[in-house]
Amino acid sequence: MSQSVGFIGLGSMGQPMVRNLLKAGYHVKVYNRSESRASALVDVGAIAVSSPAEVVEVDGMVVTMVSNDAALEDVTLGAQGLLERLGSGGIHISMSTVSPDLAYKLAELHKQRGSSYIAAPVFGRPQSAAAAQLKICVAGSSIAKERTQPVLQALGQPFDFGEQPKQANVIKLCGNFMIISAIEAMGEALTLVEKNGMDRSAVMSLFTQTLFACPIYQTYGPLIAEQRFTPPGFQLQWGLKDINFFLDNASQVYAPLPLAHLVQNRLLSSVAKGRGESDLSRLTQAISEDAGLEVVP
Amino acid sequence: MSQSVGFIGLGSMGQPMVRNLLKAGYHVKVYNRSESRASALVDVGAIAVSSPAEVVEVDGMVVTMVSNDAALEDVTLGAQGLLERLGSGGIHISMSTVSPDLAYKLAELHKQRGSSYIAAPVFGRPQSAAAAQLKICVAGSSIAKERTQPVLQALGQPFDFGEQPKQANVIKLCGNFMIISAIEAMGEALTLVEKNGMDRSAVMSLFTQTLFACPIYQTYGPLIAEQRFTPPGFQLQWGLKDINFFLDNASQVYAPLPLAHLVQNRLLSSVAKGRGESDLSRLTQAISEDAGLEVVP
Amino acid sequence: MSQSVGFIGLGSMGQPMVRNLLKAGYHVKVYNRSESRASALVDVGAIAVSSPAEVVEVDGMVVTMVSNDAALEDVTLGAQGLLERLGSGGIHISMSTVSPDLAYKLAELHKQRGSSYIAAPVFGRPQSAAAAQLKICVAGSSIAKERTQPVLQALGQPFDFGEQPKQANVIKLCGNFMIISAIEAMGEALTLVEKNGMDRSAVMSLFTQTLFACPIYQTYGPLIAEQRFTPPGFQLQWGLKDINFFLDNASQVYAPLPLAHLVQNRLLSSVAKGRGESDLSRLTQAISEDAGLEVVP
Amino acid sequence: MSQSVGFIGLGSMGQPMVRNLLKAGYHVKVYNRSESRASALVDVGAIAVSSPAEVVEVDGMVVTMVSNDAALEDVTLGAQGLLERLGSGGIHISMSTVSPDLAYKLAELHKQRGSSYIAAPVFGRPQSAAAAQLKICVAGSSIAKERTQPVLQALGQPFDFGEQPKQANVIKLCGNFMIISAIEAMGEALTLVEKNGMDRSAVMSLFTQTLFACPIYQTYGPLIAEQRFTPPGFQLQWGLKDINFFLDNASQVYAPLPLAHLVQNRLLSSVAKGRGESDLSRLTQAISEDAGLEVVP
Repeated sequence: MSQSVGFIGLGSMGQPMVRNLLKAGYHVKVYNRSESRASALVDVGAIAVSSPAEVVEVDGMVVTMVSNDAALEDVTLGAQGLLERLGSGGIHISMSTVSPDLAYKLAELHKQRGSSYIAAPVFGRPQSAAAAQLKICVAGSSIAKERTQPVLQALGQPFDFGEQPKQANVIKLCGNFMIISAIEAMGEALTLVEKNGMDRSAVMSLFTQTLFACPIYQTYGPLIAEQRFTPPGFQLQWGLKDINFFLDNASQVYAPLPLAHLVQNRLLSSVAKGRGESDLSRLTQAISEDAGLEVVP
Repeated sequence: MSQSVGFIGLGSMGQPMVRNLLKAGYHVKVYNRSESRASALVDVGAIAVSSPAEVVEVDGMVVTMVSNDAALEDVTLGAQGLLERLGSGGIHISMSTVSPDLAYKLAELHKQRGSSYIAAPVFGRPQSAAAAQLKICVAGSSIAKERTQPVLQALGQPFDFGEQPKQANVIKLCGNFMIISAIEAMGEALTLVEKNGMDRSAVMSLFTQTLFACPIYQTYGPLIAEQRFTPPGFQLQWGLKDINFFLDNASQVYAPLPLAHLVQNRLLSSVAKGRGESDLSRLTQAISEDAGLEVVP
Repeated sequence: MSQSVGFIGLGSMGQPMVRNLLKAGYHVKVYNRSESRASALVDVGAIAVSSPAEVVEVDGMVVTMVSNDAALEDVTLGAQGLLERLGSGGIHISMSTVSPDLAYKLAELHKQRGSSYIAAPVFGRPQSAAAAQLKICVAGSSIAKERTQPVLQALGQPFDFGEQPKQANVIKLCGNFMIISAIEAMGEALTLVEKNGMDRSAVMSLFTQTLFACPIYQTYGPLIAEQRFTPPGFQLQWGLKDINFFLDNASQVYAPLPLAHLVQNRLLSSVAKGRGESDLSRLTQAISEDAGLEVVP
Repeated sequence: MSQSVGFIGLGSMGQPMVRNLLKAGYHVKVYNRSESRASALVDVGAIAVSSPAEVVEVDGMVVTMVSNDAALEDVTLGAQGLLERLGSGGIHISMSTVSPDLAYKLAELHKQRGSSYIAAPVFGRPQSAAAAQLKICVAGSSIAKERTQPVLQALGQPFDFGEQPKQANVIKLCGNFMIISAIEAMGEALTLVEKNGMDRSAVMSLFTQTLFACPIYQTYGPLIAEQRFTPPGFQLQWGLKDINFFLDNASQVYAPLPLAHLVQNRLLSSVAKGRGESDLSRLTQAISEDAGLEVVP
């Protein structure tokens, strides 16, 4: 007998994730705000419903993978939200990148109703999702985590970070901060390289083959070297949103983090210049411009 | 018939490098300021001499691997320096991390005498040197570079960056800047992790297995997570020296690089607090302290 | 016939302000959370009441001078708050340093009820308040501003900044930002002075007599030079609160302001080290410490 | 019997200074690299000579007021320089803004020859020079300082900072750092003001009348508010030169000064964008641009 999972949010990440759940043998009820997104999944076996609440089975599990705090609040707490339907014993596996504060709030609300909130934000772009190779930071009650293991393993590799949901979100934000910092560092180094009359790509290639032979540098290094900022893999404005959450948390715990402030500034400026929908790597354009270099992306 | 190479500078890097040259079949004359350093190498076939000039063979090649600008000037331009002895046709393979300005100056002086100056600074710690896996940034005249290929390949992997020696040094400094920036980023992320009550090592372990699964993060990540700052693999004060060179160059070409300034400040403060001889990773101690955390390294 | 004014908030600023209103001939009803604060004012003619609502006269004016956003919300929107009592025609003269967001929210709520919200935050310490020399940034509806003129003139010098209340609060935050920036600048300059073996006070004295012969430098310069951080004239943690509001606003309008981030960091670190209740000038202690200097305040 | 003084450097500062010395009754021999500058002064009594050395009288005093380190080295140490001519008992009153390192070097060279080097850099623009109201930071041997008192008093107001000449130069750099920091702070505040839809000049006017009613804010505030960056009162590139000296000194004494780094970056970027010859206040243009605002100076 196969198990059921609800799934809310059918964007570029959600689509391949649902496919992996279907492949793993789950019955999947899906919901997306704009319904057209569901049709390709229906063709391969998913069942489309017309409200968040309807994806919920009695005592069931629901994965949410939506774009921001507002969307998660909407599908959870809204009139047709999943919270009230989930019931005692239900589990909300929340995989979106949202603020630790929202994670905390939703976890409390679930607890009051006898259901569980598992924070499970992920690292990985759509192709990692398709390959079921997402890196998943998981936090929440042990019993609920155990039940969700097979679901998460169908989607990628879970890493367990304890019982407090919001902590998984802090870790996710730390990762994004480290990514953005690496981009700033690459951008500054290549600006100096260019000002010294050298070839940006040749130098970056050395680093991504040796000291920094890892996914983040190998993904972003060539984009920055060639100043190829479209199409966006991850929009710059989403990076700003995450750094804002990161620094909100830092402010709450009194942690002065100057590099985080530096990149927040860089992102703010990029958005102010109308670059928010470009790829995150475009934050490096301002480094070049500040050095008097022209950039023709 | 085997070839000769002179080698000046028998520190923790020079020692294994000379061994690799001997293994590759070179006759190696060695010089070090404090002579005791030479004895172990003499046991395995090196010939110790008592001045920089004496390592030079007619028309020969000399590798220098010394600790800073002053030492390189001394062995090259001093009374018993190699410059005047090298003669037309000789090649100085300069592998130390020195300032681009010194590289430029020495390259000009060699050119005036008909000899060649090849800048060949390296990435890698002593164990990479022992494994002949140094990553070598090479720049200088094409003809001289061709002759030095076998020597460099006995020491590691050369990457060619054109004809102007000082450019190899700029790249080396860019690499060190990127390393130090990564350390700052890791330090800030882990400070937030600790202030949120989570385990530093568990979080760093996630990152070094996934997004940042590369030598720099895997080397420094655990040191920073565990705040294990001795023994020094690379002294913090050397990092400051390199960032100073990096920013001198940036100033000359009018490149404003705020992250470089941020880490310069961090290193300056660390030296001011008496931490200059600790490992470079100790720059992260101040991040913790600024957040009111106690550090017991 | 003399006019009535309500006054809420009898701290070190409110006390002398009420005295000035009494001197100017107003009937003043006063309220403070801890009632003991009212007694000295009752001796000179004020009438103490026991809830915020009770200070309100029909069609009257009420001044609020409380310590933060929460306190202002409480006295305005709470069960015994002034909002519902103020009635059509009433005017709330809000002189506390609060967030522009709260000013906006309260202005809207008043407008819906037919009353007016005048933002009138001030520059000046208690002795300026006593001397009726507060500098007052005023914004709100023209008609209401006209009616409040005599009240404000009894308290100091009003400067008119238009019709939108929250703008007066932005200006107040700009002033505090400039003050804190000046403190950081003085602290850095004097740290260099001390590291060069010179006398901090002698150098500061030159500047406060010449280039910077103005209240902010003359007030803070000697405190910083002598590292005299108690008693607090203005608590450091209040400065952090204001910089947080300043940067919230900057974030909303996409203005990257690196100096503001720098001082936010400095203040965060100072609070993390337990210095939040010291004088604002104590943020400079960390500048000395970062340079390896010991500070014995 | 009137006394003689030599004077080297007849720029916009030197011109009115020589006039004041003539008014005070001194015989003044003047030298300037481009001789045309001398003619107006000859009309009012100065004697023009054709080399630095010729301004020197036996046992005399010479004032230098030139544009940078190179110029001061040239007139002092060059073939026709004043050093060798000054002789035992002579005094070099060095009023240019130069590096502490050069001050130290020249002071040593004078001492070896029995002459004295008094560092006496000034605060004040040409109109302060004309009004004999320069603020002069003086350091050097007590005996020499005493002899120079009347000369300095004819030019402005001397402030004594001890016996080591270079310390006066450090103080001068501290002052310039504080000026540039104040400009950055004003620029950031007004950028926020503008982004909130308010009038820059109205807000600046409040501050320069109250909290910051002093020469620096009153001079630069309106220029920044109106973005009126020409003609240059003090060129932006000279500000960069001074901040570079300031940070060189900070580096030597291990003082991490983040605000100084921030403004160095801002100035570097401004020069990279071709704004080096505009007024110093133009560094604020980049603050506006970073916030996406257009600036039409």
